[in-house]
Amino acid sequence: MTSAAQDTAPADLRVGVIGVGQMGADHVARISRRIKGARVSVVTDYFRDKAEEVAATAPGCRVVDSPEELIAADDVDAVLIASPGTFHRDQAIACIEAGKPVLCEKPLAMNPEDAYAVVEAEKAGGAPLVSLGFMRRFDAGYADLKDAIAGGELGQISMLHCKHRNATTLPGFSDTMMVYDSAVHEVDAIHYFLEEEIEAVQVVFPTPGPRADEGQHDPMLLLFRTASGVIVTDELYVNTDAGYEVRTEAIGSKGIATIGLESGRVTTHLAGARWGGAIPKDFRPRFIDAYDAEVQAWVAAVQDGTNIAERSATSWDGYLGAAACQAAEKALTADGFVPVTTRPRP
Amino acid sequence: MTSAAQDTAPADLRVGVIGVGQMGADHVARISRRIKGARVSVVTDYFRDKAEEVAATAPGCRVVDSPEELIAADDVDAVLIASPGTFHRDQAIACIEAGKPVLCEKPLAMNPEDAYAVVEAEKAGGAPLVSLGFMRRFDAGYADLKDAIAGGELGQISMLHCKHRNATTLPGFSDTMMVYDSAVHEVDAIHYFLEEEIEAVQVVFPTPGPRADEGQHDPMLLLFRTASGVIVTDELYVNTDAGYEVRTEAIGSKGIATIGLESGRVTTHLAGARWGGAIPKDFRPRFIDAYDAEVQAWVAAVQDGTNIAERSATSWDGYLGAAACQAAEKALTADGFVPVTTRPRP
Amino acid sequence: MTSAAQDTAPADLRVGVIGVGQMGADHVARISRRIKGARVSVVTDYFRDKAEEVAATAPGCRVVDSPEELIAADDVDAVLIASPGTFHRDQAIACIEAGKPVLCEKPLAMNPEDAYAVVEAEKAGGAPLVSLGFMRRFDAGYADLKDAIAGGELGQISMLHCKHRNATTLPGFSDTMMVYDSAVHEVDAIHYFLEEEIEAVQVVFPTPGPRADEGQHDPMLLLFRTASGVIVTDELYVNTDAGYEVRTEAIGSKGIATIGLESGRVTTHLAGARWGGAIPKDFRPRFIDAYDAEVQAWVAAVQDGTNIAERSATSWDGYLGAAACQAAEKALTADGFVPVTTRPRP
Amino acid sequence: MTSAAQDTAPADLRVGVIGVGQMGADHVARISRRIKGARVSVVTDYFRDKAEEVAATAPGCRVVDSPEELIAADDVDAVLIASPGTFHRDQAIACIEAGKPVLCEKPLAMNPEDAYAVVEAEKAGGAPLVSLGFMRRFDAGYADLKDAIAGGELGQISMLHCKHRNATTLPGFSDTMMVYDSAVHEVDAIHYFLEEEIEAVQVVFPTPGPRADEGQHDPMLLLFRTASGVIVTDELYVNTDAGYEVRTEAIGSKGIATIGLESGRVTTHLAGARWGGAIPKDFRPRFIDAYDAEVQAWVAAVQDGTNIAERSATSWDGYLGAAACQAAEKALTADGFVPVTTRPRP
Repeated sequence: MTSAAQDTAPADLRVGVIGVGQMGADHVARISRRIKGARVSVVTDYFRDKAEEVAATAPGCRVVDSPEELIAADDVDAVLIASPGTFHRDQAIACIEAGKPVLCEKPLAMNPEDAYAVVEAEKAGGAPLVSLGFMRRFDAGYADLKDAIAGGELGQISMLHCKHRNATTLPGFSDTMMVYDSAVHEVDAIHYFLEEEIEAVQVVFPTPGPRADEGQHDPMLLLFRTASGVIVTDELYVNTDAGYEVRTEAIGSKGIATIGLESGRVTTHLAGARWGGAIPKDFRPRFIDAYDAEVQAWVAAVQDGTNIAERSATSWDGYLGAAACQAAEKALTADGFVPVTTRPRP
Repeated sequence: MTSAAQDTAPADLRVGVIGVGQMGADHVARISRRIKGARVSVVTDYFRDKAEEVAATAPGCRVVDSPEELIAADDVDAVLIASPGTFHRDQAIACIEAGKPVLCEKPLAMNPEDAYAVVEAEKAGGAPLVSLGFMRRFDAGYADLKDAIAGGELGQISMLHCKHRNATTLPGFSDTMMVYDSAVHEVDAIHYFLEEEIEAVQVVFPTPGPRADEGQHDPMLLLFRTASGVIVTDELYVNTDAGYEVRTEAIGSKGIATIGLESGRVTTHLAGARWGGAIPKDFRPRFIDAYDAEVQAWVAAVQDGTNIAERSATSWDGYLGAAACQAAEKALTADGFVPVTTRPRP
Repeated sequence: MTSAAQDTAPADLRVGVIGVGQMGADHVARISRRIKGARVSVVTDYFRDKAEEVAATAPGCRVVDSPEELIAADDVDAVLIASPGTFHRDQAIACIEAGKPVLCEKPLAMNPEDAYAVVEAEKAGGAPLVSLGFMRRFDAGYADLKDAIAGGELGQISMLHCKHRNATTLPGFSDTMMVYDSAVHEVDAIHYFLEEEIEAVQVVFPTPGPRADEGQHDPMLLLFRTASGVIVTDELYVNTDAGYEVRTEAIGSKGIATIGLESGRVTTHLAGARWGGAIPKDFRPRFIDAYDAEVQAWVAAVQDGTNIAERSATSWDGYLGAAACQAAEKALTADGFVPVTTRPRP
Repeated sequence: MTSAAQDTAPADLRVGVIGVGQMGADHVARISRRIKGARVSVVTDYFRDKAEEVAATAPGCRVVDSPEELIAADDVDAVLIASPGTFHRDQAIACIEAGKPVLCEKPLAMNPEDAYAVVEAEKAGGAPLVSLGFMRRFDAGYADLKDAIAGGELGQISMLHCKHRNATTLPGFSDTMMVYDSAVHEVDAIHYFLEEEIEAVQVVFPTPGPRADEGQHDPMLLLFRTASGVIVTDELYVNTDAGYEVRTEAIGSKGIATIGLESGRVTTHLAGARWGGAIPKDFRPRFIDAYDAEVQAWVAAVQDGTNIAERSATSWDGYLGAAACQAAEKALTADGFVPVTTRPRP
């Protein structure tokens, strides 16, 4: 005797992906092969043939001509935006107006005003629909550090020291891009770890490294001051032979906690009598699991109808990030701290 | 204009799970929530109400009365065996006879003869159908260490030092169980890392710890000698207040490599002036990702029809493990090394 | 047959010690028990009974009433100044005028003008006679890091990150004392590591910790900019339950190097499942060997007549430190960077 | 007014050094330049010109023709034996008969009988005169580990894991020399850490490394069993490209403690994206401070008339070491454990 099947499995969430460059194509592969409960149903890209090529790797996926068509499609339950940042504002608002959940790659918008417009649209819609792609919030180390801070074992936090090192960047990676593309991660991490806003930003320029472009300030040191007075130092070094590393150290009155000290998995003692491990070349080995966890959490939240703001970054986080980055951009040419001005949360 | 969908997504692999105790229930949750491309269609257990309870957590899952019924079911494409080890031999052979791929939790069988019978049955069937649940092969650290050994950067390997520490075991965990339940992981790791067979085993008994049962030898030190002469030390300590840890150190002529040195993710400097991190209480934080990767790899291999022997342990590995463990069991009451005898591979 | 003794051993250097508080008494014990080639012949202190007590621990040591008498004494070959900082200027100049080598505890003087006066007196005397007690220059880790920077393996240096944490300070340890007593070590380290001068200083105040006195800014963050443009961050936290730690991290274009990561000598995995080591309560376990090495080097240099400036800090280093600390003091109440002004080296 | 000098400094201990090969010459330099309270008054060596050369570096040092003459000399208060091991027995006994304290480099003798003869001679003399050159007892890490074991924080000790790796050895370094020259250090460490005797020894031969001489077993694995049942594994690898390393790990019921994990002082992240540190080429950087501390402690104990057995190894430790090494030598050609037989302590 067998019992009858209790109910059939729920249908997979049908995800439309806007933009299938490196990041978008990665997301298509992720959803198609590793994320339980979702499949990519529709993709679109400025380059039609790129979209066709990526769609061919995702079973049952079709290509449409425009973001608008994708957002409106009946076989799209939720949208993942991986287009260039300048389009994020309009595409996110279109998703909100269509009532469809959206996972938007960072940044939410190119300036605070545009980010605020998304926040207002979401507020007007009445439901939290926007998740922002700050995948570090899904990294196990980041979660551990947040727990250590929130749990009080470190006592009162006075400082964070952040480090973000890259082996290399694309040519023409300007100071402004260092702020908006790299520092933006630490900006979000500050909000995530400390649960308070950034009040002012200062930028200091050390001697540039030998691989800095003419006029580029690499490395760069940013100082953030939060509303309660915590000071955050952020070392950005985006062209360093020492390779990829992301660290955060929290300085508390009862203790210090650090994540990201070494990324190597095997510790070796090799001929030449050196001990140590390997540093990854880019972010993938360090954060690939965080991307998977982020998208999986989004899919689950959308299917279960739970509030996506529990762990994921939201449009409000996107607005705060845009405001802090705008101040940091001004600080590139200012002395001392530049205040961050924010509007009230709708 | 939209292009037509190229083809619909493939149907999920329907997995039948035999035995839903802690390990089986974990697998049901894993396949239902985290493994892409599969769902649990049927479960069975000696305790019918336990089976009903677990089935209720997996959408579309039904319960049957016996392993035989489950293996024969039309809505079961592949079988995961998580029943007590004494049943593994017969259930694995039944799967082979039904032509269904099977992922069998370790051990493959309780002795070398029974394990060899599974190997012969699989050989007779003509297709590789058996994957064995040695999930450490899917741990990133294990893979890195295997690469370091195979790639030659460590030179010629002369020794491995393995350590396996548990915070606690169930009452009545005997010396024999330490061999068959704990050391069996290192036995498989030796085959995995060195790609050669174990030739002889010796057991040495240090002073028992204060939590060892009457007559139990905990900690225990095993020595393995491989066909080429590599010596492996294996420290087993299954009731230690120091908590869970699994380490392997490979001693080569050009270098030493270690995995598992510290499991902590946050390094802290806390009041009381101690620096360090946390050690997990049991295997979950350390190996949870390896379990996911193992089952995901099995699902993908079954769906794609690729050879499961690429990375996963096979029935032959199960046989070798049973032979080595049997010799280790004899070594519990012998002096010096006890030879491991194996039959030719079918 | 025996060969005749070639010559008798040289007489020990007779050292006079001015001030026998904690630091001076430590030096007397050091020279009496651990430093080869020297003995303490005369001591003096504002408190005569303290001087008598310390003299009794050093064989053949007598007590005099004043620093002047000590400096002039026939049985004093060299002078170690461990009196309060306000007296250093005059006592160092008196030693120079008497033609006696002097090892002066930091600071050389309380302000740049007084320090410059010592430099001028030494220049006028025509011989290098002043060593300054920056013992970190004799720490093995500091020497290794200097080698790594000078040897070029780190490429071009853009930043240093320094950290100086104390378990506790005496009551009334003001912001100014944090600059002159704690930051002064990093000021000298900057000169030692980079071999260039500090050009400007900025101070940033994070949220004070719970053990900061009313009005005290602890922790404090100092930013130094050197002549070539290297930026140095210096985190001072002098009342932290996390205990004593001194670290320096050099950020180069080809690599990063860190000293002082962990001070623990035994790494433990203890009940409660924590791994790690101990942090010393104060500077002694960390730097005791450096003090010994410093005084031993000074004794050897004096006896051999070699130039003491090879490794030890000199009066010029003392002047540079005083100039940087004075600027840091001004920066306590200024916005942005405060320039450091120095006079030419005599 | 000045107080009269209380007493003059005590005369330096006049040390005679027998044998001025590498180790003896190092000791002469140590005593002449770094050890407070002693000077080398007489040296002797089989090669007269070598003795002359070394004597010339030590102020007031003369050369004599024979160990006997040196031991008898009026200007020798204490003797340091650094001659080849075959002469240690007779020279140590001669020192005892002359009533002169002796610091004898390891080994005390070449076999247990000879070592026992020294113990008996010392007993007959009625005073503890023999210190043995196991300088690891003066290493800070060893002292910390002994404290951790003795203090009970590790609970009940069941195992020690020792590792001793050398970059290279002299040609013709045989299995027996690996036992008597290398393993002897771990033998003494077992006595030092556990304060009990070794009861039995087993030797296991892994695959030899590519730099092992014909017939040499390098690496080698020794197993020691103490009287209370503690098992000690000792990995010896004396020709490994990975360089010099000495580690000890103590396995207790409440915790694990390790010393010697990494010897590097600077941790680097270098171009090529590797993090780590340097391993010393030989024992000097690792143990130089221990040698200094050992000789300084010996000089102080001799001058103060305190019992040298507090921390230093004694002739009894030398006897126990010889007995254990003799058993290990037998174990080179035996199966399983070889018992260690010792006579009662005189």
